[in-house]
Amino acid sequence: MSGTGVIVCKAAVAYAAGQPLVVEDIQVEPPRAGEVRVKLVACALCHTDAYTLSGSDPEGLFPSILGHEGGGIVESVGEGVTSVVPGDHVIPLYTPECKDCMFCKSPKTNLCVKIRSTQGKGLMPDETTRYKNMKGEPLFHFMGCSCFSQYIVCAEISVAKINPKADLSIACLLGCGVTTGIGAALNTAGVEQGSSCAVFGLGAVGLAVIYGCKMAGAKKIFAVDINPAKFEIAKKFGATDCINPKDYPDKPIQQVITGLSESGFGIDYTFEAIGRVETMRSALECAHRGWGKSVIIGVAGSGQEISTRPFQLVTGRQWLGTAFGGYKSRSSVPQLVDQYMEGKIPLEDFVTDRMKLEDINKAFEKLHEGSCLRCVIDMQ
Amino acid sequence: MSGTGVIVCKAAVAYAAGQPLVVEDIQVEPPRAGEVRVKLVACALCHTDAYTLSGSDPEGLFPSILGHEGGGIVESVGEGVTSVVPGDHVIPLYTPECKDCMFCKSPKTNLCVKIRSTQGKGLMPDETTRYKNMKGEPLFHFMGCSCFSQYIVCAEISVAKINPKADLSIACLLGCGVTTGIGAALNTAGVEQGSSCAVFGLGAVGLAVIYGCKMAGAKKIFAVDINPAKFEIAKKFGATDCINPKDYPDKPIQQVITGLSESGFGIDYTFEAIGRVETMRSALECAHRGWGKSVIIGVAGSGQEISTRPFQLVTGRQWLGTAFGGYKSRSSVPQLVDQYMEGKIPLEDFVTDRMKLEDINKAFEKLHEGSCLRCVIDMQ
Ligand SMILES: [Zn+2]
Ligand SMILES: [Zn+2]
Ligand SMILES: [Zn+2]
Ligand SMILES: [Zn+2]
Repeated sequence: MSGTGVIVCKAAVAYAAGQPLVVEDIQVEPPRAGEVRVKLVACALCHTDAYTLSGSDPEGLFPSILGHEGGGIVESVGEGVTSVVPGDHVIPLYTPECKDCMFCKSPKTNLCVKIRSTQGKGLMPDETTRYKNMKGEPLFHFMGCSCFSQYIVCAEISVAKINPKADLSIACLLGCGVTTGIGAALNTAGVEQGSSCAVFGLGAVGLAVIYGCKMAGAKKIFAVDINPAKFEIAKKFGATDCINPKDYPDKPIQQVITGLSESGFGIDYTFEAIGRVETMRSALECAHRGWGKSVIIGVAGSGQEISTRPFQLVTGRQWLGTAFGGYKSRSSVPQLVDQYMEGKIPLEDFVTDRMKLEDINKAFEKLHEGSCLRCVIDMQ
Repeated sequence: MSGTGVIVCKAAVAYAAGQPLVVEDIQVEPPRAGEVRVKLVACALCHTDAYTLSGSDPEGLFPSILGHEGGGIVESVGEGVTSVVPGDHVIPLYTPECKDCMFCKSPKTNLCVKIRSTQGKGLMPDETTRYKNMKGEPLFHFMGCSCFSQYIVCAEISVAKINPKADLSIACLLGCGVTTGIGAALNTAGVEQGSSCAVFGLGAVGLAVIYGCKMAGAKKIFAVDINPAKFEIAKKFGATDCINPKDYPDKPIQQVITGLSESGFGIDYTFEAIGRVETMRSALECAHRGWGKSVIIGVAGSGQEISTRPFQLVTGRQWLGTAFGGYKSRSSVPQLVDQYMEGKIPLEDFVTDRMKLEDINKAFEKLHEGSCLRCVIDMQ
C-alpha cells in the first residue's frame, strides 16, 4: 500500500543552532519506494538532540527536525516495502540494518552502511527530503529519524517492528540511550558473571550500563559522577559503590578506583558515558592490568582527542567504543521490547518527565537538570 | 642440587648509559632458593637492549648486564627448584610464569606479576643481585635475564625448559622478538583465515608478525616501512603488498592503506612494530571500520602518548597492545621450539649476523643497519 498524499501535521523545527525549536505545521510527503511513513506516538529527548541543537555538532544541519528516540505506528508504506504494513508498531532506528551490506553480514558489528552517506547529509536514500514547512522550504532529516514530528518518513531498514502491546511512550526509550547502555555492557564489553565494572557518568546511558552490568552478573559495579544526587538512582539500577571524584581532589580518579579494586590492579570493565576525553582516559587507565576492557560510549566534542601512554595497552588494557550498544537494530530491538514486557528491563524507571509537543523547549532545559533522565514528549 | 660456589666468567657490562659495554670477568654467585644458574650458549641482541643502553629508558639501571634473548644449559639449581635439573636446556624469560598468581591463573593474560617489582629494580626476588665485577661492585640484573654473561642466575619461574636437540644459537630467538611478533598475530589479534593485515615496521618483530599472519591464513598482508630495502625479505616471510609511506608524501598513510583495502573500509588487523606513537595512530586509523583490531607492539619513547579521535573507536576499531605476544612463557616457549624443530617457524631466516662476545659493541652498531635482523652472540 502506497502513501496517500501529503500530510500536514505539527513538528518541532530546528531553524538554527542555539535557537529554540519552532512548533508549527509542516508538510510530510508520502513514502517513496523502500520507505515508510510513521505516525509518532511519543519521543524522548536525548543529549544528542541537545548537542546538535547547541551548534557544537560540526555536522549539524539546519533547518531540520531533530529527535531520534521515538515510537509510532506505520501509516503507509512505499513501493517494495515488505517487512512492515500500515498499523504495525515500530521504533525508528538511527542505526539501520539492511541485512545485506558487508557490515550487516558480519557478526562482529552493527554498523550498517547501506544509507550512511545520505543519512549523514540529512536526506533520504534518494538524496531528497520528505519534509517542508508551510512556506515550502525543505527541512532536513536527522539521524534518519526526525522523531519530533507527528508524522515521519524513514527508510524501511530504519524501523524495527515491535510487539503492538508494548506501550510506545515507554518502549521508545529503546530507540537510543537504554539500548546503547545495556548493549555496551552485554555486547561490546561482554561483562562476565562475578566481574567488576566501573561506569563514568550517571545519565540515562550510564544507568543503563549499570543495569546491563547487573544483568550480566557483575559482582562489583562502581558508579562515578561528580553529582552525588545521582547515587541513589544508580544504586537502584545496580551500583554497589558510588564514587564522587570531587571527594579526591589530590588524586587522579583512575588511581582512586584502581586502589579500591579488589586485586589492586584495576576494574575488569569500565565505561565512559559522559563524552569527556579526560574521563575516557581515566576509564581506560583504571581498567584491569592484563585484561581490562574500557568502552567509550559518550560522544566527545568536535576535534577532541583521547590519549594515553601506549604502556597502558601493552600491559593488557583494551580500548573499545560502541554505537547503539553493538545491537543489530532491526533484529534486536523487538527482542529488547519483549524483555521489557517480561519485566526484565525497567524502562519506566528512566522516564522522569513527560511533556506535550508544544512544551518541547522546556524539555530541553529539563534535560540539563540532574534529576531528569528521560523526558518523553507526547506527540499526538 | 645446589650451586657450587662463585663462578668467574666473561660478561659484557653496561657501566653507564651511552657508553660501550665492557667485556670483562665478573663473579656470578650460586643460585639461592627458587633460582637457577645457567651457562649461556648464545644470545641475540634486541632493540630493547640498545634502547636501555642508549639512556632513553627512564628505568634503565647501571652498572648492569643487558641481554634477554638467550639460550643455555642449567649449571646448578637452588633449594626447592623442581622444574629443571642441571643439564636441562633452557631459554631465559623476561616474562616469567609462576602458574600461581592471579594473572597466571587467568586465561586472558600472560603478564605474571610474581617477581615484577624486584625484576623492575634489577634485582632477584630476595632484593639482592648475584653479579659483581672483580672489584666486588654489584651489577644489576636486566629484565630478569642478563644474557650477556657466560653464566647467569634467574628465578626458576623465568626459564623455559626446551627440547635439548634444538640448536640454542637459533632457538634463543624465541626468547623475545620472534615470539612477540608471532604471538601478536596469533594470540593478541587472533588473525583469521582469509583476513587482511597491515604491519608497520619491518624489523625482526614486524617480520615475525607477518609470518604469524601468514600462519593464520591471512589473505592480504601489507608490509609498511620507509626503507624499501626491507621489502624483499618481507615478501619472503609472507607479505603480499609492500608500501613505502615516502611514496605518498601528500596523504596520511592511514588513508593510503584504507584506500588500498579490499572493502575500502580498512584492514582487519594492523600492527605497530616500530615504537613511534604517530605510527601507532596510523595503524589504528587504517583498521577496518566495525571490527578492525590494532595491536601496539613497539615500545615508545618515555613520556610519549598515543592519541586519536574517540570516533575511531566508537565506529568499531579496537586498540590493543601485546607483551611477549600474549604467550604464557614457560608453557608456550617449549612448544614454539618444537614448532621450529618441525620446520614450522623459519627462525634461521632471522639470523643475519653472528659475532663473538668480545665484538658485542660492533653488534650494537650492526643492529641499527637496515640489513640486520638478529645478530647472535656466541657466548662461550
Ligand atoms: Zn540518542
Ligand atoms: Zn547493512
Ligand atoms: Zn627484546
Ligand atoms: Zn604468575
